[in-house]
Order: sequence, then structure tokens, then C-alpha cells
Amino acid sequence: MKAGILYSGGKDSSLMAVILNRMGLEVELVTLNFGVYPSWKPAFESASLLGFKHKVMEAEDKTLEEAVKVITEDGFPNNGINLIHKTALELLAKEYVLIGDGTRRDDKVPKIQASEIRSFEDRNNVEYTNLQGFGYRTIDRLSSHLFEFKKEKSSLENNSDYEIEVRCLLDEIHGKGSSSSIFPLHYQTRVMGWKK
Amino acid sequence: MKAGILYSGGKDSSLMAVILNRMGLEVELVTLNFGVYPSWKPAFESASLLGFKHKVMEAEDKTLEEAVKVITEDGFPNNGINLIHKTALELLAKEYVLIGDGTRRDDKVPKIQASEIRSFEDRNNVEYTNLQGFGYRTIDRLSSHLFEFKKEKSSLENNSDYEIEVRCLLDEIHGKGSSSSIFPLHYQTRVMGWKK
Repeated sequence: MKAGILYSGGKDSSLMAVILNRMGLEVELVTLNFGVYPSWKPAFESASLLGFKHKVMEAEDKTLEEAVKVITEDGFPNNGINLIHKTALELLAKEYVLIGDGTRRDDKVPKIQASEIRSFEDRNNVEYTNLQGFGYRTIDRLSSHLFEFKKEKSSLENNSDYEIEVRCLLDEIHGKGSSSSIFPLHYQTRVMGWKK
Repeated sequence: MKAGILYSGGKDSSLMAVILNRMGLEVELVTLNFGVYPSWKPAFESASLLGFKHKVMEAEDKTLEEAVKVITEDGFPNNGINLIHKTALELLAKEYVLIGDGTRRDDKVPKIQASEIRSFEDRNNVEYTNLQGFGYRTIDRLSSHLFEFKKEKSSLENNSDYEIEVRCLLDEIHGKGSSSSIFPLHYQTRVMGWKK
């Protein structure tokens, strides 16, 4: 039985993959892409360095457009990012019986509520798992045992989060740089293989 | 760094232990006991069969008495069992930096709320983990890969849940058999070693 894990190349989704793999499941790491920008590449690199199979899952433009519309109206990314995340889960449910992501206990976005999880599992007859049982300190502790990291300024070249294609479309619609007010500059940690 | 896992010998707490162990932590399995009845023995047997270190953690009578009082007043076990569980976590926090239990997403009792987890972690400067990211179907799936089980009618001899000593004290106070209306007969699954 294969598990499909939504994968960004970060430590959370990497840890979710390793947990399920070490519990005996075959895991495939899956990164969503709308065809706007090949933002899946950093995630592919991290997955390869860990030796996991990686797939790019193509999603429809209209979901990205809807998310960008919501984000523009809201002036902040939360609801739009959640919309993309839920779409990604629904797509995964067409291919896998067991679906995971790296959402942890203290994450605010993306986050799906208990009632949404029940609905998602029942409608699709799938199982959903995440890192809801772990806080960021435990995830830092476990992932620093397991992985090598690169800590760097987030950019188009090194980030596979939903954010990247949202930014590309925001800048296309509202002018170059307009996405910076919604997604401020931040640092990120990317998994670069197993700890030596 | 050692992690202390509240342990009953069931599949949930066994899975929590295996996850943390396979992520690189040394784990110790800990079963609470009030000295009323040696209900820790089945948990010790399961831990031994898995090759994990097991400890019995002695708790004060007054916690069990308070729990029995609450359960008697309520007429159902939930609040009293939660009281014991929270006491167990607080005791574990005196010995371990990382504390785990087998509480899963669809558990109702014992269960600690998000705000209680934050308070517990901050007050004690510890990390708390559980199986909140997993539903029962996934836990059944993973644990059936990992463990051999014995499915049996729950009894004094084969169960290390808090319930056992609560029942003993209830029957002592209110007369033999009086605990049966609060804790009806049920079947349980006990871990009996690694899957061959």
C-alpha cells in the first residue's frame, strides 16, 4: 500500500514521510503544480536526496486563480492557501488510500479542521494523517537528528510552497513586486538529505 | 535524550513508542500505578516483548480517590479518567523532557485540549507528543504491520488501563461488582511482540 504525502521539501513534510516509511509503508512524495512556474523543483531535489520517489501533481489554473482572488480580497494569504491545500488533498485522494501532509500542532496555515478531516476521509474513503501530535520544538529535535538542512532566504529558486505560484500570478495581475506586501521576505529551512 | 511514554500495552501507546524510537530517540515506557492493584503487569509484559525499557511510576492515593469521587458523582468515567491522565503527565514531566502518550485523533478519553497542552509544556518546560495526527484506521493499519496482538475480554489480569485500579477502589467503596455499571465489559487488543 502506497501513501501519498504532500511535499514541499521542508522538515515537516519530510518528517511525515519518514514516519510513515519507517512504520512500513511505501511513500510517494507529491508536489502540487499549476503550470505557472516550476516551483516543484526544490521539493524534487529534497525528495531525491532522501531517496524517496517524487511526483508532480498538476492542478487546474482555476484553483490558483480563485486562491489569488481570495488573497487579493482578504489582503492576507491564509484563506487562499487553505483553498489550495484542500484542493491538493482532494487530488491526492484520487490516487492514494493513505494521504499525509506535514501540518503540525502549532501550524495556522494550511490547516484543516477535525470536521473537515472526517468529511474528507468519508467522502473519499481514504485515511488522512498529519503531524498534529507534534509541536515545532519536537519536530525541530527529530528532524535535526535525521536531516541535513540549508537555511536560506526564501526565493523562486529554492521554495516549493504554494506561495510561489500564488506570487507569480499576483505579480502578473497586479504588477511586479505587488505580492511582496502579502508575502513578506522570510527565511526557510530546506532538507538536503540525511544527516551524516 | 530519553522520551517517556505513558504506556498501557495497547496498540496506540505502542505505536507512539515505536515512532519516537525509529526517529532516533531512546524511549522508556511508563505505567502509572497507585498501589491498589498491580495493573502495570500486562503493560510490562508487552513492553518486554517489544524490547523496550519499562518503568512503573507510583502515584499518590489521593489522585485515585479524587478520580473515583468524580466518577461516582458523574456516573460515567470520562472526567475522572482525564484527571488521572493529567496527573500521570505531570509526574512524567518531572523525569523526562519529551513526553508522549497514545492519544489519537478520534479518542474522546483521555484527551487533553490544545490550551492544556500549551500550559503543560510551558509550565514544565517539556515537549508533549501524541497520535493526534492519526485516526483509528491508520493506527490499525500501521500496528497490524508492526505487532502481534492478543484480542481478549478485558480483565484484571490483562489490562493496564487506569480503569483497573479505579474499578478496584469503586468496588471496595460501593461493594463488589458496583463498578460494572460504570465500566461495562469490553474487548481489548494487547500487543504481544513484533510481527513475525
